[in-house]
Amino acid sequence: MNNFDFCSPTYFVFGKQRENETGKYVAKFGGKKVLLHYGSESAKKSGLLDRVKRSLEQENISYVELGGVKPNPRSGLVYEGISLCRKEQVDFILAVGGGSVIDSAKAIAMGVLYDGDFWDFFSGKLPEEALPIGTVLTIAAAGSEGSPHTVITKEEGMLKRGAGGECLRPKFSILNPELTMTLPAYQTACGAVDIMAHVFERYFTNTKEVEFTDRLCEAVLLTMVNETPKAIKNPNDYGARANIMWAGMVAHNNLVGVGREQDWNSHMIEHELSALYDCAHGAGLAVIVPAWMSYVVEHHDCMKFAQMAVRVFGCQMDFENPKATALEGISALKRFFSSIGMPINFKELGAKKEDIPLLVEKLGIGDGKTGGFLPLDKKAITAIYELAAAE
Amino acid sequence: MNNFDFCSPTYFVFGKQRENETGKYVAKFGGKKVLLHYGSESAKKSGLLDRVKRSLEQENISYVELGGVKPNPRSGLVYEGISLCRKEQVDFILAVGGGSVIDSAKAIAMGVLYDGDFWDFFSGKLPEEALPIGTVLTIAAAGSEGSPHTVITKEEGMLKRGAGGECLRPKFSILNPELTMTLPAYQTACGAVDIMAHVFERYFTNTKEVEFTDRLCEAVLLTMVNETPKAIKNPNDYGARANIMWAGMVAHNNLVGVGREQDWNSHMIEHELSALYDCAHGAGLAVIVPAWMSYVVEHHDCMKFAQMAVRVFGCQMDFENPKATALEGISALKRFFSSIGMPINFKELGAKKEDIPLLVEKLGIGDGKTGGFLPLDKKAITAIYELAAAE
Repeated sequence: MNNFDFCSPTYFVFGKQRENETGKYVAKFGGKKVLLHYGSESAKKSGLLDRVKRSLEQENISYVELGGVKPNPRSGLVYEGISLCRKEQVDFILAVGGGSVIDSAKAIAMGVLYDGDFWDFFSGKLPEEALPIGTVLTIAAAGSEGSPHTVITKEEGMLKRGAGGECLRPKFSILNPELTMTLPAYQTACGAVDIMAHVFERYFTNTKEVEFTDRLCEAVLLTMVNETPKAIKNPNDYGARANIMWAGMVAHNNLVGVGREQDWNSHMIEHELSALYDCAHGAGLAVIVPAWMSYVVEHHDCMKFAQMAVRVFGCQMDFENPKATALEGISALKRFFSSIGMPINFKELGAKKEDIPLLVEKLGIGDGKTGGFLPLDKKAITAIYELAAAE
Repeated sequence: MNNFDFCSPTYFVFGKQRENETGKYVAKFGGKKVLLHYGSESAKKSGLLDRVKRSLEQENISYVELGGVKPNPRSGLVYEGISLCRKEQVDFILAVGGGSVIDSAKAIAMGVLYDGDFWDFFSGKLPEEALPIGTVLTIAAAGSEGSPHTVITKEEGMLKRGAGGECLRPKFSILNPELTMTLPAYQTACGAVDIMAHVFERYFTNTKEVEFTDRLCEAVLLTMVNETPKAIKNPNDYGARANIMWAGMVAHNNLVGVGREQDWNSHMIEHELSALYDCAHGAGLAVIVPAWMSYVVEHHDCMKFAQMAVRVFGCQMDFENPKATALEGISALKRFFSSIGMPINFKELGAKKEDIPLLVEKLGIGDGKTGGFLPLDKKAITAIYELAAAE
């Protein structure tokens, strides 16, 4: 295990109807003038936004609104949010929505206190301060409610890039699993894939002697494999929604990833798909993750993939042929993704094989290699896209 | 799953040689005049205390010392610490040691800011403020490095009682697994039992639909079953020590226990043993936990115990007779405790069957019932002590 620092100071408020306490927590963390940031009309139609506003009003907290965040949130709205916050002297950003809304809120929170172009933080600059952020989560997926990360897409060239810094961890996050019950099955499944992918990026590591964090990773994966089909079959299954929602936070606040080298190639490779085709990040991951696994399966004599197969998918270990077990695990994962309605190849996703050179080029890795498990160059990544394109 | 709040804001500094950064973290959290609190001479002899002092001096932080904390820490030293802190105008409590030292530090931290007798907090009063606390952990066991709890023994009547409040969570905790390598095997094993017991108190619950936290509990238990024998066999096994140390924190900061009713009878029943015989808390738990399990095994048709047997100890599920599997799991746990050198009955612990009426009386539960899984009255607890007394 490697040395590490870990601090996840976010105050989590979990359970039924807890969005009605939003105002109390904004006040607790010093918010007096709030930017109420949200996405589509669904938060309005469902009455959620009204409940949140009422809660703010009960605490005499004033707010300005900025809706319209799209999946794969865009830099244009971030600039708009920064201007609005400055004009209205906002001191707290409240995100009501899923990962896209929270990520957009984080970018605004950094940008308001920064004199330069906020995109600098998505080009390598480390943010040192940000306005305090609170969230009311409506989708279990991105883990942004507990993480120090954000991903934004720049319209010019559709560049999708991430930024991170401890100042971006939300002060509080309200997680009411009921709010996820109205999600279409497809979005529920996309969220499940995203959660699992956050774990895979950490699980597949070259760091030795990480038994405990391996077991924590497997706890998330087992939960997702067992609970997601229940939520798809019965969208109002509170228990399934609750287990998924809490697992989604734990999957990405880095508790399961401390002390180990992490990979993150699958996310990077996928980001080009959702940037180019504007597809759901989770759907893109369902296509890329198994392809990536198939390409790197032999690293460390297939043993880490055999471990996943046995511990997560209950495969029998083939002691004479560990690779057979490893491959069986990857097949089981693909079958699982299919069973919850996810695409597992380019055709099902709506991606085109002929775009592969463009996808690889846009990654911008030049002649270098990327990733922590098995570093990959352009040729290797091309091979992974080709595996993903095969039916 | 029940509604819950969760916030674990402690900054964890994990890994080799990290105690050399102590001063930096005391400064980060505003400490200028420190009470350096520790236990036996071993922290002096090993040079640890000198390294910590040097680190404080590098940051120009002054300190006063108070050593002498004993296992099952006493109220007498807490009063002494409170007086010393007031006299020396201490603004930060630094605990260098195991759970006893940290618990003593927490009691002092509350007491300094309280006009009345600090024991009030161990008699039901909720602490609202405390001096900031930092820890340099030397034993993986109590989980006090990440928890809001403390347990102190009052000499008068040898009353062992707990207190808790969010203000007692350490600001930072430094966890260097190397510091645990010099522990005698017996203490390593006691710590392992304590860690597992913290999980059992949460794992056995009446709350339904807690798949994810169950899996997290099992992650800790599997880790302890796999790693503890390695640390006992080779005390310098860094990987085993590191996995145990991080698992010990996660076992008790309540991440694995949120959203569920918890039990805590085993701890309460054990506390009377360590108070009366001054035995190690972990050793007492190794005797009490399996006895408690045997008494309550049939609750919920034995299914939770069968789950532990299958998932943690790899037992085969007997689908015609789940109780057989459940009992096999409890037997496996007893064998495991024995294998790491722990007592599993009164005789091995040095407790006396004839003291059972006294032990039960000292619990002070009168005609009531206690515990969250299967509430127990005096008669039931007597039966558990008798099961523990049987060889």
